[in-house]
Amino acid sequence: MTKVDPAVLDQLIGALPDGAVLTDPDMIAGYRQDWAADPNAGTPIAVVRATCTEDVQAAVRWASEHRIAVVPRGAGSGLSGGSSAVDGGIVLSTERMREITVDPVTRVAVTQPGLLNAEVKKAAAEHGLWYPPDPSSYEICSIGGNAATNAGGLCCVKYGVTTDYVLGMQVVLADGTAVRLGGPLLKDVAGLSLTKLFVGSEGTLGIITELTLRLIPAQPPASTVVASFESVESAADAVLAITREMRPAMLEFMDHASINAVEDSVRMGLDRNARALLLAQSDAPGAAGAQEIETIVAACEKHGATEVFATDDAAEGEAFTAARRSVFPAVQAMGSLLLEDVGVPLQQLPALITGVEAIAEDCDVLICTVAHAGDGNTHPLIVFDPTDPDMTDRARIAFSRVMDLAIALGGTISGEHGVGRLKRDWLPGQLGEDVMELNRRIKTALDPLGILNPGAVLS
Amino acid sequence: MTKVDPAVLDQLIGALPDGAVLTDPDMIAGYRQDWAADPNAGTPIAVVRATCTEDVQAAVRWASEHRIAVVPRGAGSGLSGGSSAVDGGIVLSTERMREITVDPVTRVAVTQPGLLNAEVKKAAAEHGLWYPPDPSSYEICSIGGNAATNAGGLCCVKYGVTTDYVLGMQVVLADGTAVRLGGPLLKDVAGLSLTKLFVGSEGTLGIITELTLRLIPAQPPASTVVASFESVESAADAVLAITREMRPAMLEFMDHASINAVEDSVRMGLDRNARALLLAQSDAPGAAGAQEIETIVAACEKHGATEVFATDDAAEGEAFTAARRSVFPAVQAMGSLLLEDVGVPLQQLPALITGVEAIAEDCDVLICTVAHAGDGNTHPLIVFDPTDPDMTDRARIAFSRVMDLAIALGGTISGEHGVGRLKRDWLPGQLGEDVMELNRRIKTALDPLGILNPGAVLS
Repeated sequence: MTKVDPAVLDQLIGALPDGAVLTDPDMIAGYRQDWAADPNAGTPIAVVRATCTEDVQAAVRWASEHRIAVVPRGAGSGLSGGSSAVDGGIVLSTERMREITVDPVTRVAVTQPGLLNAEVKKAAAEHGLWYPPDPSSYEICSIGGNAATNAGGLCCVKYGVTTDYVLGMQVVLADGTAVRLGGPLLKDVAGLSLTKLFVGSEGTLGIITELTLRLIPAQPPASTVVASFESVESAADAVLAITREMRPAMLEFMDHASINAVEDSVRMGLDRNARALLLAQSDAPGAAGAQEIETIVAACEKHGATEVFATDDAAEGEAFTAARRSVFPAVQAMGSLLLEDVGVPLQQLPALITGVEAIAEDCDVLICTVAHAGDGNTHPLIVFDPTDPDMTDRARIAFSRVMDLAIALGGTISGEHGVGRLKRDWLPGQLGEDVMELNRRIKTALDPLGILNPGAVLS
Repeated sequence: MTKVDPAVLDQLIGALPDGAVLTDPDMIAGYRQDWAADPNAGTPIAVVRATCTEDVQAAVRWASEHRIAVVPRGAGSGLSGGSSAVDGGIVLSTERMREITVDPVTRVAVTQPGLLNAEVKKAAAEHGLWYPPDPSSYEICSIGGNAATNAGGLCCVKYGVTTDYVLGMQVVLADGTAVRLGGPLLKDVAGLSLTKLFVGSEGTLGIITELTLRLIPAQPPASTVVASFESVESAADAVLAITREMRPAMLEFMDHASINAVEDSVRMGLDRNARALLLAQSDAPGAAGAQEIETIVAACEKHGATEVFATDDAAEGEAFTAARRSVFPAVQAMGSLLLEDVGVPLQQLPALITGVEAIAEDCDVLICTVAHAGDGNTHPLIVFDPTDPDMTDRARIAFSRVMDLAIALGGTISGEHGVGRLKRDWLPGQLGEDVMELNRRIKTALDPLGILNPGAVLS
């Protein structure tokens, strides 16, 4: 931990309401890492728990004056180390910024960043409206973090990702200025698309203190198909056959290891012998929905599914979806994880999934793969024992090789989690030097002192 | 026209294929203005008709070396003077860049910028796919221009705007470097959201030379409702009643003057006495669609519609839609136009529409208003006789007051056309100084010499 002049820290404490600044080492410890458990996370000199935009401004102004790093943090559920603390810096937590209002006429929610995704969905549902983006962690991740990472989820294959629902925001810039971008307008092209630029910027350009979110009418009840396959190739081929014909409301993939990890933990009666499983939904109404379910079933059967189960019972469908969402925690029970988030153009999905299998074998590590298969976004979860240095090395090599494979297939190192600190070193390999330079120019233009989340995304 | 050293111009001609550089004054004249007919448009020293990215790079490198302004131009159908030529600069036309490939598996189109929107739709339709954004000018506007302005259209109320369909692009930067951003990935959060930043940047940050567009399954056949009202308030109230209940596939508004301009030109049998008309569609399948049409009809009747006509005949629905799209040319036949594109939060739609009526009366000018009512985006068309200086002054005052009204109602000066040069002076009023400064910082970071479309959006 870097030492800081106590007088400087006192200025921060004095600029904020009582209790907003934590300096007790035991309390600070809980803010060092997010779910990525970055082993290189630093120790902050203080944690600011802001309650309003003005608190964020006061903290950032202070940080700017003293050139102190500010790591923004929502619920701490990030999976790429985007909220890893920095030695000598502060963590700026938005967990206490929890107000929301819903306007059912304009169909927008105006929310502070600390609300959980599930709480935003609930507030919308009270007006018969729906906020679609649904990261698997939706019950524990914050809406501010969702915007900062441009988070995805299961329904995104049909309904799009976070940026598609962000109409406006208030954001505190690197010098402490608070600006409003966009607003409750479905169309607004006046000036550069700054709202869209801040979405997914992982706290490197500013700190989001309010979001204006587009809501849509409540999702119709969905029907669900669960299909088991004897090989990952067959399942991946079925995915392409489905998406060529229709747009499912969900199209998820689980491999053998994931199926068994889930069965060990929640016992859904999934086929433990299957090499792969697809979970698909249609929410088209009436006969159109029945037609879509038929299309999904036929595609699975044509590609050699050993078992296909369809249900229009919404609760049963949700139980399978919950099982799919439980893969992360279930696999986490098996060891330490290196979490991948690689995506490829859909045609390359079979090559990616079989390539990951080959990497697992080659590196002699367990990789459980789940995927938002319908949009080509996969999560190979590399399991290792951190007390075994050799296995840890092999896991790290596998982690790198999976990203290299995705890049070679024309894909991305991150589909929805963000680059954070753990995937930063692979970013130039994906983007190339010219695009890296574009990223750096914008970062420098907006944060010339480099105090906002330094080390995340860009080095 | 600014004089240019002939040797410098020869360098440009030498750097490009034969016939790519026009210098003949008569030929150049046709590239001075877009549809906004900007009276302050300059005269370029040359027009470059690029055929590929390399041509664009060669032209921009030359322009950068000699600090010469580059005004990018698609089909020239812009409505805000975004392509007004600049004295001493060049116009860079993408009209000859017309290649497209459609991948039905990944469901993307990779297209050069010079294709018309209608041609992109047609190429997608050949694979049973749909590119939704549909500016009224879709038969004559280019897809590159659509991306540069983040164009909207009629179906955007349900299906979103251009940016929602742009997955990636190739773009030539101010120094002539060509970069690829994004790609055929439905989810990609690696690095800043640069693709989204370039969409809507109106050629001020770079020149788009290729687009990767997301396609979706073909739109189901739509049913249509046409409803007449005795006042604009009633029609606007019906809009709110409809959008509170459902998400129509189209929800358009025409006022009395627009109805009559259309009837004068295409004779659809619209009620010439109506003060306002709504045109709504549902494309939900089967019983769900019938239910939506019922909801629309009931909302119109509840708010005093004098006549409500519903049809599930797709051809008949398209005829009404074509009539709506013909408002611009029909009104243009009545005189010179100042074209507004103001949008407001949906709740403020009645206040905007009645406010525009009051401005028309107050300024004693004819304003025909059509609107993409379902998303709060309106097009008051101010008609004037340019040979009448007093009327021209009053039209200009009305033009300004309509934008001031939109800003006062929490809205935007441009919902889908772009700021260009004609609305630039109102941008600071909407965005405020801090957000203007953000815009300028990014502009300067990416175009330090200020050669890309100078005078558009930012002064």
